[in-house]
This record gives sequence, C-alpha cells and structure tokens, in this order.
Amino acid sequence: MSAGARDVVTSVSPYVPPPAQKLSINTATVRQQWKLDAIIDGIARHGIRGISPWRDQVAELGLAETARRIRAHDLTVTGYCRGGMFPAADAAGRLAARDDNRRAVDEALTVGAQCLVLVVGGLPAGSKDIAGARAQVRDGVAELLDYSRGVGMPLAIEPLHPMYAADRACVNTMTHANDLCDELGDDGLGIAVDLYHVWWDPQLPAQIARAGKKRLLTFHLCDWLVPTRDLLLDRGMMGDGVIDIPAARALVEAQGYDGMHEVEIFSSQDWWKRPPDEVLATCKARHLACC
Amino acid sequence: MSAGARDVVTSVSPYVPPPAQKLSINTATVRQQWKLDAIIDGIARHGIRGISPWRDQVAELGLAETARRIRAHDLTVTGYCRGGMFPAADAAGRLAARDDNRRAVDEALTVGAQCLVLVVGGLPAGSKDIAGARAQVRDGVAELLDYSRGVGMPLAIEPLHPMYAADRACVNTMTHANDLCDELGDDGLGIAVDLYHVWWDPQLPAQIARAGKKRLLTFHLCDWLVPTRDLLLDRGMMGDGVIDIPAARALVEAQGYDGMHEVEIFSSQDWWKRPPDEVLATCKARHLACC
Repeated sequence: MSAGARDVVTSVSPYVPPPAQKLSINTATVRQQWKLDAIIDGIARHGIRGISPWRDQVAELGLAETARRIRAHDLTVTGYCRGGMFPAADAAGRLAARDDNRRAVDEALTVGAQCLVLVVGGLPAGSKDIAGARAQVRDGVAELLDYSRGVGMPLAIEPLHPMYAADRACVNTMTHANDLCDELGDDGLGIAVDLYHVWWDPQLPAQIARAGKKRLLTFHLCDWLVPTRDLLLDRGMMGDGVIDIPAARALVEAQGYDGMHEVEIFSSQDWWKRPPDEVLATCKARHLACC
Repeated sequence: MSAGARDVVTSVSPYVPPPAQKLSINTATVRQQWKLDAIIDGIARHGIRGISPWRDQVAELGLAETARRIRAHDLTVTGYCRGGMFPAADAAGRLAARDDNRRAVDEALTVGAQCLVLVVGGLPAGSKDIAGARAQVRDGVAELLDYSRGVGMPLAIEPLHPMYAADRACVNTMTHANDLCDELGDDGLGIAVDLYHVWWDPQLPAQIARAGKKRLLTFHLCDWLVPTRDLLLDRGMMGDGVIDIPAARALVEAQGYDGMHEVEIFSSQDWWKRPPDEVLATCKARHLACC
C-alpha cells in the first residue's frame, strides 16, 4: 500500500471536496505513537478542529485534564468512545455494565462530547444465543437511556461489521440500529455511521434515509482494504480501499447531516507504525481528496 | 482449540442428532492433505454418503475419472464448487466469465451434482461501484440461467459473509439472494445456505422462511471461531464456535429441507494440518453431536 491515494472513482460527479474544518480525528488513529496529551496538541497543531477520545486514554491522562486541554484548543468532541458491551452471562455482569455505562455518560458530559458511542457487545462467554444477546442489548440501551436522557447525553448506537457479531457488537446493520431507535424512541438516541462497518450493505442508502438527520449523530471514515489482512487492525486510509466515500457522504448530507467527518483507523502494520505527524497530515490530505 | 466439542448449547431442546447419512463433505475440508481421488475414497471408506468437489481438483483428476469414481461409490454430489465471479472490468472479462460458467454447468452435470454453487464475485479491479457489481451479478446469473435451465442444472446463489463483499461475493445476505430469485424466477434457481456466512443475520429466520423448500438447494456447515484469526482460512469445526447449528437446521427443516448437511472447513492452521482420516472422523462425530 502506498501513501498516495488511488484516483477518486466515485458515483458522485463532479467531486466536491468536503470543507477542511469538518475533519475530526478519533484518537485511536495515532494511539500507538502518542499519548492523549500529545494527540490533543498534535490535532490542534495540524489545524484539525475535531477529536473523539477513548476512555482508557482519558483515564490515563485524567478526565479533568483531558477536558481542560480539549477546551483550551476549542476542539469539537464528535463522540466519546465508548459505552456499550451490554450482554453478560449473569445479572452481576449486567449490573457492572450498567454502572460502567453511566460513568461513561458522565465522562462524555465532562469532555463535552456530542454523543456517547455505543459498541453494544457480542455473545456472553459460552453462549450461542445471539437473539438473546440482542435482547440484552435492547434492554441495556433502554436502561441507559433512562440515565442519559436525564443528563442530556445522546447515545449513538454504532452498527459494527458482521465479522464482529460474536465478540464485539451484535448490532451489525443500520436496519437493526434503526429498529432499536424505533423501539426505544428517538429522544437522545441515534446512530454512529462508520462506513467501515456498513459500506457493503445493499440497504445502506435506504437505511440512511430512514435514519434521517435526527438519528445521524456521527459519521466515521476510513477505508476497506483489499486484501484485509486482519479482522480488527487493518483498516485503510481513505482512498486506499474500495469504499465510495463521497457517495456515502452525499447520502448523509442529503438527510441534512452537517456534522464532522471522524477518521478512525486501526492499522497495526501500517499507519500505527508511521510518524504521527505524517498520519495526521495524510488524514487532512485524504479528507480533501477522497471523501 | 481442542478436538473436543463444547457442550451443545442450543435453542433447540431436546437435542435430536441429525441422521448420519445426511453428512456430506466439501472436498476443501481435506484438500491440503489429499488429492481428489484419495478424498473420494476416504469419504467412502468413512461411510460418508455425500461429497461436493471443487473444479480445480476435478480438473487435476480429470472430469470423467472424477465422475466414474464418485459413481463407483454411489456418493450423492450435494453441489459443485463453483461457478460465479460475474463482475468484470470490461466486456471481454464478462464474456470469459460467461463461457467459464457454462463449462462449470456442464461439469456439474457430468459429475451428477444437485446444483452448481455460485460465488458471485466482488468488485472488478479498481472499482468502488458495488451497486454496479451487483447489477453485473444479476445480469450474469440471468444469462447463465438461459443456459442452465436448458440443460437442467440448478444454480445455487451462495450469500457470502459481508467481509468478502469486495473480493469474493457482493451478495452477502439471504435477503439479497431471495431478491435475486424473485427477480430472475425460481425455476432452476435457489440458494446455498452456508451458516458461516449468514449465522449473524437477524433476518436469517425470516429469510429462510421466505426462501422455502424450493429455494433451499444446499445447506453448508462449519463454525465461527472466537477469535477468528484469518478472514478466509480459519473456519471452525462444528461445535468449536458460536453458531447455534441445531437451531439453524431446525429453521431449514421447518421449510421441508430434506437434503444433506455439507461440511466445508477452510482451516490453514488447524484442520488442514491434521491427518485427514482424523478430520473426517471428527466431521462424522461432530455432525451427530453438534448439528
């Protein structure tokens, strides 16, 4: 894989670059090179206006210090990563998840996040009951909504690629996420659309339209590489893969989505090995050239 | 991963083992250890009554010789692997695919297969147009049906897991396969249900019911391992993963499916490294214990 993007081949013609100020960086993108304080400073230094931090990094830097540094640079927090992981093998596990998720809501408020992203969890250990896991997710989101609505933090259900159904998230399509929003109510509940997870779905255009502006809480970008060498840590830089990102952006914009474009790249063999300033500069360039 | 299956945990209770004579072996399961003549003999020696061979192995052994050996053992050929790969970058590529698929139909007839399995293909090189690839698939299947219907060879569209959408098959759900059957007509057209690809789908029960007995042309088994270490070559033996196989079998049987249960395991680091007699014996045991 070269650092140069392929020519943009898209169903959206002519190509109109997105506004540069719409770029946000999920901190996982450079987490192997920098700690969170360096990531915040680096994002600001590159003139990038949005950030989405992970809880473990925030815990290491300190919640108040994280919030202070993000505010000092006036960065928009496009999401907080992450809550969820609802299914558990027993009631104690579910109670622990409930409490941890409430803390995640509180932290998201403190850092000023636009939403708490929910990676809902997969099968409890030893279980083959995916319908049961999905029922636990529904109940867990419903219970968390009782809390999050009270404090005003929107929850964004993130459908994850079906290859993560067993171990990370058993909500794997926009259709399922929309169904949950229908069942639990739109108030304070929506969807995190990450193209890596949903690009393949023939229902994507219809389900983005079904979601509408109200449910489209955040929009995540990277690319699907061919070949993909690892199920978790081989995401591509925008332009290096097969996702028609401009076409997908047109779909969310057609619904009135006017939020930022959050780049989230897990890449153990490529981007996590590069100098982080190069990674951020490439994110900026590819955002304009390929998104 | 141990050779012993986990306890059967299934939503179907009490567990009723499938009839042993329903077991069929896809030759990919032991292809790293044996050539096709040894596979055919080994399957018969183990008292297994079904087989599904791959074209490259058939080409190596010879089509007539393959057919003769399969007939000599009176094995049921539960499918022929494989046709498809319809999308191409240009007309010459599509023409080559058409001709090759017609040859695959002829070969399937010669070996007495119950259906030709279609792995429909992904994006042409350099393309990001998955909707266009899907249109090429529809047109390619329609054109092949003109031929296959004339000679009486059923085509079985195999939805592949969404992680193969780019490079192997852009039909990734039972819903999409059913849509194609609706559009192109059920005559000589149906679906190959491989649980590895579709187990995660919340729509699976409804789409198996929608397919009905007429479209359920073959039923493939293996298991989804946690973790899965390779996108292509880390399928699990039934019982070692998270798929509720008995529940899925109950779904197809509820539609009247009375065909065989074809085991297809690609496993570069485990089952392909074991003695093939052990693999076949394990397939037999797990079929009875976990399916």
